[in-house]
Amino acid sequence: MELDAYLEGAAEQIDIVLDREFGSLPGVLNKASAHLILAGGKRLRPIVVMLAADLIQKGTSQSILPAALALEVTHTFTLVHDDIMDGDVARRGVPTVHTKWDEPTAILAGDVLYAHAFELICAAMASDLAKVRSVSILAGACANLCDGQHKDIHFGNRDNVTEEEYIEMVSKKTGVLYAASAAIGGTLAEGTAQQVNSLYEWGLNSGIAFQIQDDLIDLMADSATSGKDRASDLREGKQTLVAILAREKGIDLTKYRKPALTDAEIDEAIHLLEESGVIADVRKKALEHVEQAKTTLDQFPDSQEKEILIQIASYFVSRGY
Amino acid sequence: MELDAYLEGAAEQIDIVLDREFGSLPGVLNKASAHLILAGGKRLRPIVVMLAADLIQKGTSQSILPAALALEVTHTFTLVHDDIMDGDVARRGVPTVHTKWDEPTAILAGDVLYAHAFELICAAMASDLAKVRSVSILAGACANLCDGQHKDIHFGNRDNVTEEEYIEMVSKKTGVLYAASAAIGGTLAEGTAQQVNSLYEWGLNSGIAFQIQDDLIDLMADSATSGKDRASDLREGKQTLVAILAREKGIDLTKYRKPALTDAEIDEAIHLLEESGVIADVRKKALEHVEQAKTTLDQFPDSQEKEILIQIASYFVSRGY
Repeated sequence: MELDAYLEGAAEQIDIVLDREFGSLPGVLNKASAHLILAGGKRLRPIVVMLAADLIQKGTSQSILPAALALEVTHTFTLVHDDIMDGDVARRGVPTVHTKWDEPTAILAGDVLYAHAFELICAAMASDLAKVRSVSILAGACANLCDGQHKDIHFGNRDNVTEEEYIEMVSKKTGVLYAASAAIGGTLAEGTAQQVNSLYEWGLNSGIAFQIQDDLIDLMADSATSGKDRASDLREGKQTLVAILAREKGIDLTKYRKPALTDAEIDEAIHLLEESGVIADVRKKALEHVEQAKTTLDQFPDSQEKEILIQIASYFVSRGY
Repeated sequence: MELDAYLEGAAEQIDIVLDREFGSLPGVLNKASAHLILAGGKRLRPIVVMLAADLIQKGTSQSILPAALALEVTHTFTLVHDDIMDGDVARRGVPTVHTKWDEPTAILAGDVLYAHAFELICAAMASDLAKVRSVSILAGACANLCDGQHKDIHFGNRDNVTEEEYIEMVSKKTGVLYAASAAIGGTLAEGTAQQVNSLYEWGLNSGIAFQIQDDLIDLMADSATSGKDRASDLREGKQTLVAILAREKGIDLTKYRKPALTDAEIDEAIHLLEESGVIADVRKKALEHVEQAKTTLDQFPDSQEKEILIQIASYFVSRGY
């Protein structure tokens, strides 16, 4: 597929710059900070920053490259801290920072990345006003990310989380950083307030759809494809959109809430959720957010960047891992 | 004393604004973020921001007030995270954030404050260029703060820490945030590069002196005065300047490295350190940094702000708690 090739090529370019920036820093703390950044990733957020910049003003993406990196660095800082909270031991095929070093080092490594993100915004070649606005957008996104993660943790097994609460949580946990990526790209390329708002909405809705799809992948994909434990959300009783819509239809998923599930049990649960239309409803809601994302781009004239942003939104809900 | 009255009055003004900003935010995470900020404090960093601004251009401190708050918020974010790493249960007379809530909430509360700090810089009334520079200064300070804390933790009981390593550690852990406070005040008031550099050096040297004095207070002051456990550094075998200079003179402090010390044992250790001239040497080094701090202000014409900044540097090494 053409989009796959584009995303791979763009990620490789970003990998080169990240490696130059973080590959040979001295000292333990810098190495701990660089650890997850250098472990790879799809680099979707910096790609979005650059696409948004070029959408507004073709050719600006190279001048604002540091700001694109800032969004990957911000994403990584949240992963480092989230891994501590969630007690995860591996990510991207490498040990998590608090596992490889220790917890204080991981807290500080995340904090160092946080600082770098803002330094990188300031290092972009753009007007000072655009940089100040971008710093504000990024800071606002960070505050929301924290609130989203806090809500996600504290939903726990609470069996009365509403769809509205879930959407607010994923908007903050995943949506706002895609929103900030697109808005910062647009801002640094001197887009109008209306253009920047549209880019923000594109990112917010795309990000929500991304997270809903993530929940579906956790349930449906086998471990070999997803690289994660199969159906971990089901086992943990996580309040995903699947769980919420199932509850609304009177389907009891609590019997699957146990440390280990056989493949047969997981298949049974999936069958139940498919028969009752829950899976279809969840997919439909994800697609609605994709449609909303695409609509926000209507105001922009046709361009390669616009086309790729539209494809990315679709890819977010078609990807299998 | 006149300075005391000035600092108290200035802190009260800042308390009022902090209370307005953080006193009634909704949600658990916001309350956890505001917890330590609302518990009081000397507010020295924001006071320095405002003094530096008025030193450059009398009357600007009110317009850049949000940036002054940013430095207190940054300081608080580091306290929230440090308390987790150090396992401290109380600060400023209240339970620490991870004690009152939980550790994930404390990590996230610190991260939220971090974001607010950058938002507050952007909210100052100043030129965009000055704000971009201030964001860079603050981000650089945060990266250094993390490295200082990392070094402090990992010095542990390592009995070969040099004076040079100690000074680098306290420069980063304490010096850079006072340096950033003064430099950001000067930057937002449109000081020249040379003026901003001098203010930075004033803060760096004052901060180093502050930390050396902190170590002396830990050793010398009784608990009722300092509000802390007496001689905790001695008991833990911490690599303070006292410990380093004592080792250089062949004084063995390791026998005091145990969970509990009687007042007689502590008095004995102090007597030993005074007799051998260690305490005097440590005081001398602190005073050298104070003198360096004062000298950096020579280039500024006399003013009330200059006089107070000079007095603050002296106060840092004369205070008893």
